[in-house]
Amino acid sequence: MLLQEFLASEQARVDAALERLTPPESQHPATIHRAMRYSLFAGGKRIRPILCVAGAAAIADHVPGALEAGCALEMIHTYSLIHDDLPALDNDDFRRGKPTCHKVFGEAMAILAGDALFTLAMQTLVSINGLEPARIVALVHELSFSAGTVDGMIGGQVTDIEGEKQPPTPELLHLIHHAKTGALLRASVRMGGVCAGANTTQAAALSSYGEHVGLAFQIVDDILDVEESSEALGKTAGKDAAQGKITFPAVYGLDASKAMAQEQCRLAHETLTPFGDRAQRLHEIADLIVHRKS
Amino acid sequence: MLLQEFLASEQARVDAALERLTPPESQHPATIHRAMRYSLFAGGKRIRPILCVAGAAAIADHVPGALEAGCALEMIHTYSLIHDDLPALDNDDFRRGKPTCHKVFGEAMAILAGDALFTLAMQTLVSINGLEPARIVALVHELSFSAGTVDGMIGGQVTDIEGEKQPPTPELLHLIHHAKTGALLRASVRMGGVCAGANTTQAAALSSYGEHVGLAFQIVDDILDVEESSEALGKTAGKDAAQGKITFPAVYGLDASKAMAQEQCRLAHETLTPFGDRAQRLHEIADLIVHRKS
Repeated sequence: MLLQEFLASEQARVDAALERLTPPESQHPATIHRAMRYSLFAGGKRIRPILCVAGAAAIADHVPGALEAGCALEMIHTYSLIHDDLPALDNDDFRRGKPTCHKVFGEAMAILAGDALFTLAMQTLVSINGLEPARIVALVHELSFSAGTVDGMIGGQVTDIEGEKQPPTPELLHLIHHAKTGALLRASVRMGGVCAGANTTQAAALSSYGEHVGLAFQIVDDILDVEESSEALGKTAGKDAAQGKITFPAVYGLDASKAMAQEQCRLAHETLTPFGDRAQRLHEIADLIVHRKS
Repeated sequence: MLLQEFLASEQARVDAALERLTPPESQHPATIHRAMRYSLFAGGKRIRPILCVAGAAAIADHVPGALEAGCALEMIHTYSLIHDDLPALDNDDFRRGKPTCHKVFGEAMAILAGDALFTLAMQTLVSINGLEPARIVALVHELSFSAGTVDGMIGGQVTDIEGEKQPPTPELLHLIHHAKTGALLRASVRMGGVCAGANTTQAAALSSYGEHVGLAFQIVDDILDVEESSEALGKTAGKDAAQGKITFPAVYGLDASKAMAQEQCRLAHETLTPFGDRAQRLHEIADLIVHRKS
């Protein structure tokens, strides 16, 4: 199967699973379920679930729980976007080309929809069938620590907010992105490994792959914010510079940032040696992350 | 040991555990850890942790994980208070006699501190030592579903917000409180039971006790909002009526509400028969909930 076919088929599988795992709009109280679904089905690329599934596939076929773990990651990612977009935080009106959750449902419902997606992610993990309890505990462990304040997503977000008042050093830049986007991307691949029962070597290789791919992802994100139009991105372009955000192009320049993304991609490929042909999709995803246009 | 001594000693144990389980203010990024600690140590009565510990003690002595599970419940409770107090929701300036989290740290940090306490609750559960994985999964199950949108805390909060526009019927009132405060109080007792390995009969009795005690707690909360001063409550009194919130006194009148609280207390006592003398603290807590003054 070609990569594009694989991605389309996985996105459809993830969407179907999210549909099944999220309370329907008819479920009381309807408003919160509408708000959750609005943001969950706003056209995300499902990179985290696909990394999770591909991480599992690097070790075994038909791994139970990998799809559900991927959906939990997407719920956490979506909750973080809803809260980041709030007026008190980044104050963004558009996301993925659509009005943000609080623009449609109001701030109160957007705050609660974010909270509810976090909750749903945890409900999803503990409801996985056919996975031994120790692995479910390991999944909740990975997801909750990668979303947390110490070297995790919330910590990165706080450092980012506070970084706007500080000089843009390479150390600060790496500190932010390692935590803000890196932790969840790394957890995505690792959680696939947990579902598949990765041994120590395999888990370390997946972590390392996630580390490099996560960094490449963020560098490219920053480059796209400079180079692409708002229309192509589906969100306000050039916003990083306007807000004084610390970015890779701002610290290293555009050309050096592009070279860094390529280097992270090369390192990501290297980490996959232990998996041989089973890692085909992980190789392709690394290339895709560096060459994407939105 | 007298009840007051028991409560003081348990509150001290819970505070010490929360202190150990929450990242220190010196941990980067400091602001979020300060905000989390500010609200976590703002003088809560620790009713949920104490219910959890007393629920476990009704079954066995020295139950591993009951204290940590109680702390996770307190973290979830505190996160819900921080988010409920936000300007977009209840817009409260005071809580437990102190300025609310967003008044001290700003809205952005309050939103993230709530998110972070949720995350920390899950981290706490999966980090419990000496409890078999299946029981940890059951704890995450209890906590995440009781905090969720379907018959859980967030669902109750949404129904409450939307209820301000609807006629105050008994059905709506019970729907809100069963979910908004009832679910987490019920989960508190049940999670104690999970840690202690409750059998089906014991789990059902604890659920039923939690149900009655939770309802009594909410009725008394509504009565206190009418009868007590803001000073005694540590938050703005009379706010329910001013906001057009649906409450037990508003629907049933004060006297009938008081009788209902007593009746729920009586029913709570009845559920404890299977535990004999082991349930002494649960009996005392039920009485305390009905007779409290703040």
